[in-house]
Amino acid sequence: MCTVMKFNQSVLQDMSDNNNDNKVWKWHIQDPASQKLTWNKPPKSVLVIKKIRDASLLQPFKELCIFLTEVKDMIVYVEKKILEDPAISDDENFGAITEKFCTFRDDLDDISNRVDFIICLGGDGTLLYASSLFQESVPPVMAFHLGSLGFLTPFKFDTYQSQVDQVIEGNAAIVLRSRLKVRVLKENWEKKARLDEKGIILTNGDTESGRKSVQYQVLNEVVVDRGPSSYLSNVDLFLDGHLITTVQGDGVIVSTPTGSTAYAVAAGASMIHPNVPAIMITPICPHSLSFRPIVVPAGVELKIMLSRDARNTAWVSFDGRKRQEICHGDSITITTSCFPVPSICFRDPVNDWFESLAQCLHWNVRKKQNQLSSEDEEF
Amino acid sequence: MCTVMKFNQSVLQDMSDNNNDNKVWKWHIQDPASQKLTWNKPPKSVLVIKKIRDASLLQPFKELCIFLTEVKDMIVYVEKKILEDPAISDDENFGAITEKFCTFRDDLDDISNRVDFIICLGGDGTLLYASSLFQESVPPVMAFHLGSLGFLTPFKFDTYQSQVDQVIEGNAAIVLRSRLKVRVLKENWEKKARLDEKGIILTNGDTESGRKSVQYQVLNEVVVDRGPSSYLSNVDLFLDGHLITTVQGDGVIVSTPTGSTAYAVAAGASMIHPNVPAIMITPICPHSLSFRPIVVPAGVELKIMLSRDARNTAWVSFDGRKRQEICHGDSITITTSCFPVPSICFRDPVNDWFESLAQCLHWNVRKKQNQLSSEDEEF
Amino acid sequence: MCTVMKFNQSVLQDMSDNNNDNKVWKWHIQDPASQKLTWNKPPKSVLVIKKIRDASLLQPFKELCIFLTEVKDMIVYVEKKILEDPAISDDENFGAITEKFCTFRDDLDDISNRVDFIICLGGDGTLLYASSLFQESVPPVMAFHLGSLGFLTPFKFDTYQSQVDQVIEGNAAIVLRSRLKVRVLKENWEKKARLDEKGIILTNGDTESGRKSVQYQVLNEVVVDRGPSSYLSNVDLFLDGHLITTVQGDGVIVSTPTGSTAYAVAAGASMIHPNVPAIMITPICPHSLSFRPIVVPAGVELKIMLSRDARNTAWVSFDGRKRQEICHGDSITITTSCFPVPSICFRDPVNDWFESLAQCLHWNVRKKQNQLSSEDEEF
Amino acid sequence: MCTVMKFNQSVLQDMSDNNNDNKVWKWHIQDPASQKLTWNKPPKSVLVIKKIRDASLLQPFKELCIFLTEVKDMIVYVEKKILEDPAISDDENFGAITEKFCTFRDDLDDISNRVDFIICLGGDGTLLYASSLFQESVPPVMAFHLGSLGFLTPFKFDTYQSQVDQVIEGNAAIVLRSRLKVRVLKENWEKKARLDEKGIILTNGDTESGRKSVQYQVLNEVVVDRGPSSYLSNVDLFLDGHLITTVQGDGVIVSTPTGSTAYAVAAGASMIHPNVPAIMITPICPHSLSFRPIVVPAGVELKIMLSRDARNTAWVSFDGRKRQEICHGDSITITTSCFPVPSICFRDPVNDWFESLAQCLHWNVRKKQNQLSSEDEEF
Repeated sequence: MCTVMKFNQSVLQDMSDNNNDNKVWKWHIQDPASQKLTWNKPPKSVLVIKKIRDASLLQPFKELCIFLTEVKDMIVYVEKKILEDPAISDDENFGAITEKFCTFRDDLDDISNRVDFIICLGGDGTLLYASSLFQESVPPVMAFHLGSLGFLTPFKFDTYQSQVDQVIEGNAAIVLRSRLKVRVLKENWEKKARLDEKGIILTNGDTESGRKSVQYQVLNEVVVDRGPSSYLSNVDLFLDGHLITTVQGDGVIVSTPTGSTAYAVAAGASMIHPNVPAIMITPICPHSLSFRPIVVPAGVELKIMLSRDARNTAWVSFDGRKRQEICHGDSITITTSCFPVPSICFRDPVNDWFESLAQCLHWNVRKKQNQLSSEDEEF
Repeated sequence: MCTVMKFNQSVLQDMSDNNNDNKVWKWHIQDPASQKLTWNKPPKSVLVIKKIRDASLLQPFKELCIFLTEVKDMIVYVEKKILEDPAISDDENFGAITEKFCTFRDDLDDISNRVDFIICLGGDGTLLYASSLFQESVPPVMAFHLGSLGFLTPFKFDTYQSQVDQVIEGNAAIVLRSRLKVRVLKENWEKKARLDEKGIILTNGDTESGRKSVQYQVLNEVVVDRGPSSYLSNVDLFLDGHLITTVQGDGVIVSTPTGSTAYAVAAGASMIHPNVPAIMITPICPHSLSFRPIVVPAGVELKIMLSRDARNTAWVSFDGRKRQEICHGDSITITTSCFPVPSICFRDPVNDWFESLAQCLHWNVRKKQNQLSSEDEEF
Repeated sequence: MCTVMKFNQSVLQDMSDNNNDNKVWKWHIQDPASQKLTWNKPPKSVLVIKKIRDASLLQPFKELCIFLTEVKDMIVYVEKKILEDPAISDDENFGAITEKFCTFRDDLDDISNRVDFIICLGGDGTLLYASSLFQESVPPVMAFHLGSLGFLTPFKFDTYQSQVDQVIEGNAAIVLRSRLKVRVLKENWEKKARLDEKGIILTNGDTESGRKSVQYQVLNEVVVDRGPSSYLSNVDLFLDGHLITTVQGDGVIVSTPTGSTAYAVAAGASMIHPNVPAIMITPICPHSLSFRPIVVPAGVELKIMLSRDARNTAWVSFDGRKRQEICHGDSITITTSCFPVPSICFRDPVNDWFESLAQCLHWNVRKKQNQLSSEDEEF
Repeated sequence: MCTVMKFNQSVLQDMSDNNNDNKVWKWHIQDPASQKLTWNKPPKSVLVIKKIRDASLLQPFKELCIFLTEVKDMIVYVEKKILEDPAISDDENFGAITEKFCTFRDDLDDISNRVDFIICLGGDGTLLYASSLFQESVPPVMAFHLGSLGFLTPFKFDTYQSQVDQVIEGNAAIVLRSRLKVRVLKENWEKKARLDEKGIILTNGDTESGRKSVQYQVLNEVVVDRGPSSYLSNVDLFLDGHLITTVQGDGVIVSTPTGSTAYAVAAGASMIHPNVPAIMITPICPHSLSFRPIVVPAGVELKIMLSRDARNTAWVSFDGRKRQEICHGDSITITTSCFPVPSICFRDPVNDWFESLAQCLHWNVRKKQNQLSSEDEEF
């Protein structure tokens, strides 16, 4: 079993000394780079998540599974539908290995208490998917990118064996990525619209006289937008029960710091390091010139509802999934989840993040200016 | 004496339970609105800060001082130069009161251990000034605006008596505003430029073989810019010892969340609630289109130096004061200070902030759209 | 009949003098405020456009029609469905007047050559609608707002009689608002999707072996976005036949200067005065931090197509209407239309625009800063 | 002698036909790519401008001058101080050539009527400098970059001989870059401050009872800012005599379309193609969240003055030069100049511009997104 030590790295802690008359108002502030992963017992079971329908991942996936099963002697969990891919099921050499796998079906089997460790192969989406499988506590996640670096996938696959060894030995920094707990309360769920056949899955909902409540854990963001309508959505935003503002425009993004570099950055947000305990609120194409994004403390409760005079419904999605309609009277309540995603760093939380900013967003990458004489200065 | 309870409001705290096999990765997150000011003993000494050269503040100042001295029986500290204003020194009625005051001179007398409580009259600048008087622990500050609401001055003066009573009785919420501790190391301080006669005051510096180090506590921001030069500044930004990026443009702002609504917002930053433990880095007119502002955890150490190939010097200022030149080899080191400013709320940290956003920045204030028919609906 | 004099106001005209050796490279630049409406013959027929389903407009509409018919002795054109509103058809007093009206049906009757003058009652949408009725030359438009000022509706209704008199007498400034001519070429029009029952109206299209081409005149903007899909649209943008860039994000807005203050401003565009002969290209939530909006000359030809590797279709709309799907192979070609909308000014093109910026967008409206002393001067 | 044909490319021209009853409101719009340079007589005299103090330019400069003098048989004009550089004056091989040069001194000799053609070697600053030499008509300019592409320096030096041949033969597109004519009226010029020894040069001014007026032609921008002061500038902006807005912040940039990609873009402006006849107004770090940049027609007259209640002076500069203080009562009047800079294109006005956007500003350059499955979509 594993535990994370000193994870509260960016946090300001009370050190006030009231014992003498010259009281000292003082905080102790920890270094975000000091977080280390440690395991109480070595991990025995590992969930391997692979992006589906990407042929380039097949060979790495097989290699990794063989290594984990045969070399590291771990129990490998794999989603059933991955093994149903003919490129895997028809591979006789791989067949013996797959028989040792524990398989599960998304939305049907609960593996949340059976997995010690997660490895992702693919893009940032694999980590979002991993997050969606664990509504409560999440095991540490190690994510490999095969093509280009992602914000959530810092490891290169080339030397995966030594990297996995290092992680299992506990030689790894970790960043606890906060998630948002989102509760959707629908007043009249029978009338709910479905955008496509995948539609809305309300598995956790408790039905009572037409009301239905569903809960999600999101790692990037909750988006409320106008959906297929070409008309404005008008939604009210409440913070700790008070109406803070009304969003008029294409919509609003409520994101974690992790999500600040995803959709929110496209909508104009500043980028927030995942160690900052905060929630970001970013309007999408707001009608008001002065509607700048804001960052509020992790501890607040947000609520979003259609404005009373809204003439159109709105649509909500969670990390880009489970898109559903929001009607008058429905509400979306958002708080920081008690269950973060422990994400294993390639180097450390700070260097990994700046590396991603440069690689993924070309942050402040620019042509080196020529040495200019003072005469023809300026740009 | 006073203490602040539950001030760590936005902080994510470890609640992980490792005693059973079903380990629970869990955080406890406090409500930012729950911070309350409490006093161990009622405050006896109060520092009154008044904006100078503002005739409209004279009468309120006198009233307040009389109330504090005669009704509340407190020891009032006032800066000497305030009493030298003829409008005060020539007022015979007020003379008897001023004799009871403790006076001090800025930059000469240290009152940091003698004051239990601070009251500010004027604009946000009075709080910045109060902050500059206390390099270490700061007493709780209650700030009145006389004209329009400021981010740092939430109280209206009209009912000051009952408001002060409430605060002294401990019926007040508080927000701990983080400050930045800034250390300027000058390699060759004899050569330093002075912009004006006020110039650079290096009172705390310890001199040794031509190097000089000075330290400041800032509540809003440190600004590094091109100063009077019309040419570019080129400065390197280090985070925990690593070169993160090079700033090419008019300059860079390193601000607290409190400062995010001051100069940083003008330079394009998102606004950050003061309870978020973070540092904001905002470029000023950067040459690179992709140089978006970023938010890093409170626990990091930043360092700013001229780039090796910078052709011009840069200038640094601290909350808009103490402007000085930075030359090759000099460095500016910035960390979150252990000594926040305990700022007393009018209502609570959340409502006060959103009220200021609306009043001071017109945040998302807009014309209410007419009820449109779907036919001619278009912005 | 009417004509507009000196309408090329913002235009740089060649004045180069090559007759002597000291050649003079010189432009003549006209003043945008100098444009005046003049009529060759007084206007006889007037089209009155009223926002439907807005009860507050009924009385003004009736008053205006009576004034135009009985006092000004003009032939009033009204859309048939407006008269079908019971609040109008059941009004016996108004019945005698309506019998004198010329009525027409949208999408069926062509009135483009029968109207000398247009009056709009309602919001900016009425002018967009008026524009859509005239695919070629548009008569001068006078637009009244009943509630709050709009960018396209500068006139107050209070003194409509004298205002209309002034306009008919030619005492009015005019701004020629450029439109975009948009040609949608669908490769496989039978397969086209319909978003709602109003769907796509392809009245002008000439069908030939499965290809269909439709043309629109837009006054604000063409929007290409991801429509109901939650996935990215990837569209290629060509300028004069060259691939300029690929848009990855929520979409792209191609707008007139008139449209720069509508959806484009919400997506981050600078505002362009309607007299500037230009086309604005604004990305909607682009993935790239450096994808700033651009302004290109009125004379270019733009083309938008799905990128070859786009995995989703895109959707296009024209002034917020006629929303339709764009599939692989379809193209949207955009040029500045030869047929502008002559929009009658309340004061003049410059003052009307700045008035709208302040009223509609609160442009640079802010709290007047207090007179600060230099000591605590800081925002 | 040369002339520019069809240069009004982006201009909307009146084609209205009022002869029949079916009047046609119609514009004719020219293609910006159609502008071609033509010479009435082949150019005989050429001004060569070289960035000073850049050793890498010496060899290209010499080669070019020899080519122009000996091969093309042209009269070469060079600024005196360039030849005073020892690296040139001490080169005996080059001595014979320099004797054939016509030399002149900046600020003393007027060559404006003696030059048929200009060639620049170096960065964008060389073109700004060339522009400053010609207060009225400017000859066609061909600008080479030696290092990386600039917005104003499209030609590579490698094949300069064939390129120059092509241009002299008239096989070249041209873009007429508008300039701003700026008139500074100082009420009390004796009191004017000087920032450095270079200071203010008021050669053209006509003095009368203490008032002094100076005029500049700028190619990029006029900047009004707070100069060395750390306090706010408060300036009023007038358009055609009306007060439009008050700028509170670090300053304001009034730029040509050419200048929109220089300082203005750093301050947040949209980029405007140089063929658009417009003036851009961009605030620098404005206090108001809603102070978005605006674009006004080329034909307006702007005026900037200190606000009546401004507590500090402001500073103005012209293409980054001639920095000077503006006091109460002084005014800066800005109109589009009648004298554009005819800038020779490497390919054509459109392709050159987009090439510069990509190379100089990395406009919308981004990581190609991986082909994603629909399952793990989103960023």
